[in-house]
Amino acid sequence: MKREEALELVQKQITAHRYQHTLGVMETAILLAEKYGADEKKAELAAIFHDYAKFRDKEEMKSIIVDQKMNPELLEYNSELWHAPVGAYLVEKEAGITDPEILDAICYHTSGRPNMTKLEKIIYLADYIEPGRHFPGVEEVREMAKHDLNQALIQSMKNTIVFLLKKNQRIFPLTFLTYNDLVKKED
Amino acid sequence: MKREEALELVQKQITAHRYQHTLGVMETAILLAEKYGADEKKAELAAIFHDYAKFRDKEEMKSIIVDQKMNPELLEYNSELWHAPVGAYLVEKEAGITDPEILDAICYHTSGRPNMTKLEKIIYLADYIEPGRHFPGVEEVREMAKHDLNQALIQSMKNTIVFLLKKNQRIFPLTFLTYNDLVKKED
Repeated sequence: MKREEALELVQKQITAHRYQHTLGVMETAILLAEKYGADEKKAELAAIFHDYAKFRDKEEMKSIIVDQKMNPELLEYNSELWHAPVGAYLVEKEAGITDPEILDAICYHTSGRPNMTKLEKIIYLADYIEPGRHFPGVEEVREMAKHDLNQALIQSMKNTIVFLLKKNQRIFPLTFLTYNDLVKKED
Repeated sequence: MKREEALELVQKQITAHRYQHTLGVMETAILLAEKYGADEKKAELAAIFHDYAKFRDKEEMKSIIVDQKMNPELLEYNSELWHAPVGAYLVEKEAGITDPEILDAICYHTSGRPNMTKLEKIIYLADYIEPGRHFPGVEEVREMAKHDLNQALIQSMKNTIVFLLKKNQRIFPLTFLTYNDLVKKED
């Protein structure tokens, strides 16, 4: 699918603000794919579609999680996590994207998962560091991303976990398993 | 078992420094049991025996974990975690303590677990805040422990997770699951 067609499909689904974020993720993901030797076209499409389901109705997302037999643990955690796997499902169904690498990169862009592919790491990280992001710690991760994809990813997950701890929020198990997996591989 | 007999058994197993720590945990655990309505005698014995296996040979601990079919995940994580479940096993076998509540309090004093009993919480917390402990954040948890057992426990687990993140160390899954469980129940 061409970039313009993909952008047009996504633009109908999300707010103008989220569309600007999506353009930032796209630009960042292509740069990271170039730097770390991933497929730039797949990075472009995964980035464009990563937040496709962000503004779907919660009840619709819940039904999809149940009907499609997705990880039932999702429903016990923050609904912010739902748009990623639901997005992968809808992007296949509604936009006709069938490449499993692209769909997995969308599916795991919020939680991560152990043994992430390079494309999955790139989309996760691009979502975290795209130029429109401004929060404590993001600049440090941007710098790391210039030299070491895994270190940048670990740092972004650490920041996210500490952020959730400070807010007394629970940590989605897949997120800490991803952190553990990445740290183990750095040993 | 009388306090003196238990202390004598433990003193042979651990260093003088660790024995002083054990006395601090005992004293703290009894006070917490009194405050929060747990069995003081059980708290005393669990505290005395909590570090019984702390100085056992690693290979011996590994064999016990395998032979007794304990959680095999333990072996993939820091060996500092092993002395708790191995201790529970040895305290039953060598010291003749058979009360499952006491043994579980020993078993989970390092990792915690979801649905901790009051006695388990008390031993975990007493180990963290006994008067011999000096590290950033301990005073805040000591203050919390005067008013709210669960809040103090959550804070101690948050401190531990952040400490491990800063050192780029993996987090034992049971620890995360315990934090998630406690936070959920506070909602």
